[in-house]
Amino acid sequence: MPLPCPTSAPSASAQFPVLTAPEAAALIQHGDTLGFSGFTPAGTPKAVSRALALRAQAEHAAGNPFQVGVVTGASTGPSVDGALAAANAISFRTPYQSDPNLRQRINSGETHFFDMHLSMLPQNVRYGFLGKFSWAIIEASDVTADGQIVLTSAVGAAPTFCRVADRIIIELNRHHPAALRGFHDIYEPVDPPHRSFIPVFSPSDRAGTPYIRVDPKKIAGVVFTDLPDETAGFEDPTPVTTQIGQNVANFLASELRRGAIPPSFLPLQSGVGNIANAVLGSLGAHPDIPKFSMYTEVIQDSVIELMRSGKIEFASGVSLTVSPTVLASIYKDLPAFRSRLLLRPQEISNHPEVVRRLGLISINTAIEADLFGNINSTHILGRNLVNGIGGSGDFTRNAFLSIFTCPSTAKGGKISTIVPLVSHMDHSEHSVQILVTEQGVADLRGKDPCERMHLIIEKCAHPDFRDELRRYAKLSEGGHTPQTLANAFAMHQQLLRTGSMRGVTWNE
Amino acid sequence: MPLPCPTSAPSASAQFPVLTAPEAAALIQHGDTLGFSGFTPAGTPKAVSRALALRAQAEHAAGNPFQVGVVTGASTGPSVDGALAAANAISFRTPYQSDPNLRQRINSGETHFFDMHLSMLPQNVRYGFLGKFSWAIIEASDVTADGQIVLTSAVGAAPTFCRVADRIIIELNRHHPAALRGFHDIYEPVDPPHRSFIPVFSPSDRAGTPYIRVDPKKIAGVVFTDLPDETAGFEDPTPVTTQIGQNVANFLASELRRGAIPPSFLPLQSGVGNIANAVLGSLGAHPDIPKFSMYTEVIQDSVIELMRSGKIEFASGVSLTVSPTVLASIYKDLPAFRSRLLLRPQEISNHPEVVRRLGLISINTAIEADLFGNINSTHILGRNLVNGIGGSGDFTRNAFLSIFTCPSTAKGGKISTIVPLVSHMDHSEHSVQILVTEQGVADLRGKDPCERMHLIIEKCAHPDFRDELRRYAKLSEGGHTPQTLANAFAMHQQLLRTGSMRGVTWNE
Ligand SMILES: CC(C)(COP(=O)(O)OP(=O)(O)OC[C@H]1O[C@@H](n2cnc3c(N)ncnc32)[C@H](O)[C@@H]1OP(=O)(O)O)[C@@H](O)C(=O)NCCC(=O)NCCS
Ligand SMILES: CC(C)(COP(=O)(O)OP(=O)(O)OC[C@H]1O[C@@H](n2cnc3c(N)ncnc32)[C@H](O)[C@@H]1OP(=O)(O)O)[C@@H](O)C(=O)NCCC(=O)NCCS
Repeated sequence: MPLPCPTSAPSASAQFPVLTAPEAAALIQHGDTLGFSGFTPAGTPKAVSRALALRAQAEHAAGNPFQVGVVTGASTGPSVDGALAAANAISFRTPYQSDPNLRQRINSGETHFFDMHLSMLPQNVRYGFLGKFSWAIIEASDVTADGQIVLTSAVGAAPTFCRVADRIIIELNRHHPAALRGFHDIYEPVDPPHRSFIPVFSPSDRAGTPYIRVDPKKIAGVVFTDLPDETAGFEDPTPVTTQIGQNVANFLASELRRGAIPPSFLPLQSGVGNIANAVLGSLGAHPDIPKFSMYTEVIQDSVIELMRSGKIEFASGVSLTVSPTVLASIYKDLPAFRSRLLLRPQEISNHPEVVRRLGLISINTAIEADLFGNINSTHILGRNLVNGIGGSGDFTRNAFLSIFTCPSTAKGGKISTIVPLVSHMDHSEHSVQILVTEQGVADLRGKDPCERMHLIIEKCAHPDFRDELRRYAKLSEGGHTPQTLANAFAMHQQLLRTGSMRGVTWNE
Repeated sequence: MPLPCPTSAPSASAQFPVLTAPEAAALIQHGDTLGFSGFTPAGTPKAVSRALALRAQAEHAAGNPFQVGVVTGASTGPSVDGALAAANAISFRTPYQSDPNLRQRINSGETHFFDMHLSMLPQNVRYGFLGKFSWAIIEASDVTADGQIVLTSAVGAAPTFCRVADRIIIELNRHHPAALRGFHDIYEPVDPPHRSFIPVFSPSDRAGTPYIRVDPKKIAGVVFTDLPDETAGFEDPTPVTTQIGQNVANFLASELRRGAIPPSFLPLQSGVGNIANAVLGSLGAHPDIPKFSMYTEVIQDSVIELMRSGKIEFASGVSLTVSPTVLASIYKDLPAFRSRLLLRPQEISNHPEVVRRLGLISINTAIEADLFGNINSTHILGRNLVNGIGGSGDFTRNAFLSIFTCPSTAKGGKISTIVPLVSHMDHSEHSVQILVTEQGVADLRGKDPCERMHLIIEKCAHPDFRDELRRYAKLSEGGHTPQTLANAFAMHQQLLRTGSMRGVTWNE
């Protein structure tokens, strides 16, 4: 029996203890591993984690150790990673993050972080590879007496955390309507050797239930909140990001024309960040790209805009990571979105089986790319983590067509994002078919490393860096992969020495 | 209606033109792209390619250009890559090779080669990403008048080459019994957006037919041969490879004991080469490892030995890459193997969907590994190709548990296979869970880069190189990934300068 609208606290309390956030935080012990619902700031609990950060500070002030393992779907917002990192309350963290406080602790070596393919997190949790989970902390729009939990603006790994954790704390957030019931499709595969196929054959297929089903006895209590998602907005497209978007759209249109993409088009996956948002905007505006569906991870603002215009017919994702005003506009219009929007666990949205079956066109953003098509998505100068690999590996490895985009320069032109060798490799040449910058498009399919090198320099590198890269190519002639270890990082070392990659000296 | 045993040439010729190898080779034009059956030397045609090499030499002698694109399942034998490379008759080659002649041409930059994940080759061929295929050249043990082709000791990508090629040449090799009918399971997925699930739920499941079905009109002719597979034998296990095998077996036994692997065990994938062969031998001999099945790519000698002893109950693979004497012994005993051995297309044996569903334990060999768990499977000193990535990426990325093995040193101890940073990366830290050398086992699950670094030095590196690597670790402290670009390749450069990685000078 569903609870009445979550504004009516008393009926929930009839079944589950109603807790304040500090009361809930008090249940958590030093050394516990916690699994949080949500994916990006969307759907992530906000009250218990803030109370937990205060508790950790108090314990630390009293000279007691207090740290927990924090496992989430992906990144979170200031109330989880921000507050807990500021309180130095995180012992280890996985699988992804994007918070400045936490990033600083990770890059100083204070906090253990392990970067994971997001599709693999839930199964690795179930397989026991990340140890025992004491608590699942789950933001819900509704919870019924018999243990049906309806999530909010994301699914992430919440179903798995609810399965494996000893106990569950619910944040019942009245900011999200209970009418969200039906927007989630909760399906968890059985583990090997008994796993079957994942019954998703098109972006709109439903495989599971609209709620997570738990034993109500596992629910330790409900904390009532009314807090918006802590999503930031997106930057407006710039001439560079618009040109990248144009290049992607023109390329896909020409592939369609020559019959290399089926005429009905294929479902799209689009990465995270400002560039991804701009690229999708350009795609939507291109007259030769037909209506399409998204089978993606994060649903950003531009997707919703294109759903309204009719260009995107259906969007399947793991989270609604949209600006607060866009989320409000969706909630005002729920019936219109009900048949066109579906949120899934990251294990399903990113699953290699489904990605390869549907034949996705994947578009992700690189920090840097090298002359052989290898991609760095995560580390500056090979050392410092930006965010993490996220779902990019799940999609690009299994896509019908895998596209990476980036501006040809960073930091006002001081850095070439096209380098002889990436300083950290997340995606090898084997997973990268098309590389796009505002300068142009390099189609790497069926090209050997030497051909790729010349193509990437001439099509993608910024003209200011082409001579430098041509010199590297010249110095590296011969060998299947023309690479010179003595010069591979010379541009990076020039940057470390002088603050710019220009004017590099090669070992000749 | 099946032909009688292929020793009776006349009945095949009743339906299809009987050609000599030179006659078949004469059909092939300069600039054609050819798809060959087989996977490794197993199942690879041998007569037409040799005749083609002679033809190319004659054309070259007459001053005419003559080169073809050569696409296969994986590597081949001397009669394809060897002969055609010696004749300089290959314009481009994909997806894998292991021939000394061809390797030399590739590494001198004379022959275009692109290294591919083997599971992706067939779909990329169907998607048209590798251009038009003029000829499929297929070794068969039988061919019927209505176009059923029964393959020999491998499947590879033969079904796809038969589908896309304009015409087909059959090498009907009486060295392989027509009674092989039933040992192959031919299944090709439909392409997106209409693809369904792959109906393989255990290693012994059959999804398709025992033969490739083609329009008989596509068969240009049949060349009769009687030629054994050109497989080499394996080297005997050495103390080092035996110790690596012991370490893998002990590790898996302890995972079983602590319940991290289901008590019924999981299907195994095992890589190619001498080390893989030795590891499987050790696994078979370990008393605490229960009987198991293989869902693998290449079936090597040790698998057959363990099938005879009963330790391996079922083996699914893409090729029977066994020594000639072992193949003869199987052929003598076909009824005993009929219910326990199945050969599949590489698209299915290596498919991410099936690999993740079955929950494989994958064991592959590295050329070098770095302190963060990244793996180089393909390139010496970042430049020179050894073989190619093969199926290793398909398996390790999707395995239940992904293990890499290598000896801690190479070339008589002059080279440490554990290096600060791999000189070429094929598998990132995200795909590598367990690293094993004869020195020990590093369990990298849930470890951050800094922890992995110390673990790999202490557990896997050779004692002679530990101090050197500890010094690198010390110099690199700080940052999420403690890596110093100025020193990352110092050990490789020392090798280039002095012929040994010992006594490296670090940039301090
Ligand atoms: C790669 C990624 C960080 C790009 O995000 P974005 O918002 O489009 O990128 P931005 O251009 O804003 O760049 C982010 C920052 O990195 C900096 N940067 C980018 N390339 C750089 C380079 N080669 N060297 C140094 N700094 C660089 C930018 O200058 C910017 O820094 P700032 O905020 O100080 O100005 C982001 O897409 C990401 O985290 N990807 C990994 C996960 C992923 O792909 N998920 C998708 C799966 S569905
Ligand atoms: C990596 C691989 C080459 C190892 O094969 P192997 O037979 O076990 O390896 P060997 O120890 O015989 O090594 C092969 C050669 O490389 C050399 N080598 C190995 N490591 C080296 C290193 N770090 N630096 C320089 N040379 C090295 C060896 O000395 C040997 O050379 P030699 O023949 O001149 O003596 C092989 O497994 C491979 O090609 N893997 C990629 C494809 C794959 O994994 N497929 C499995 C998918 S199912």
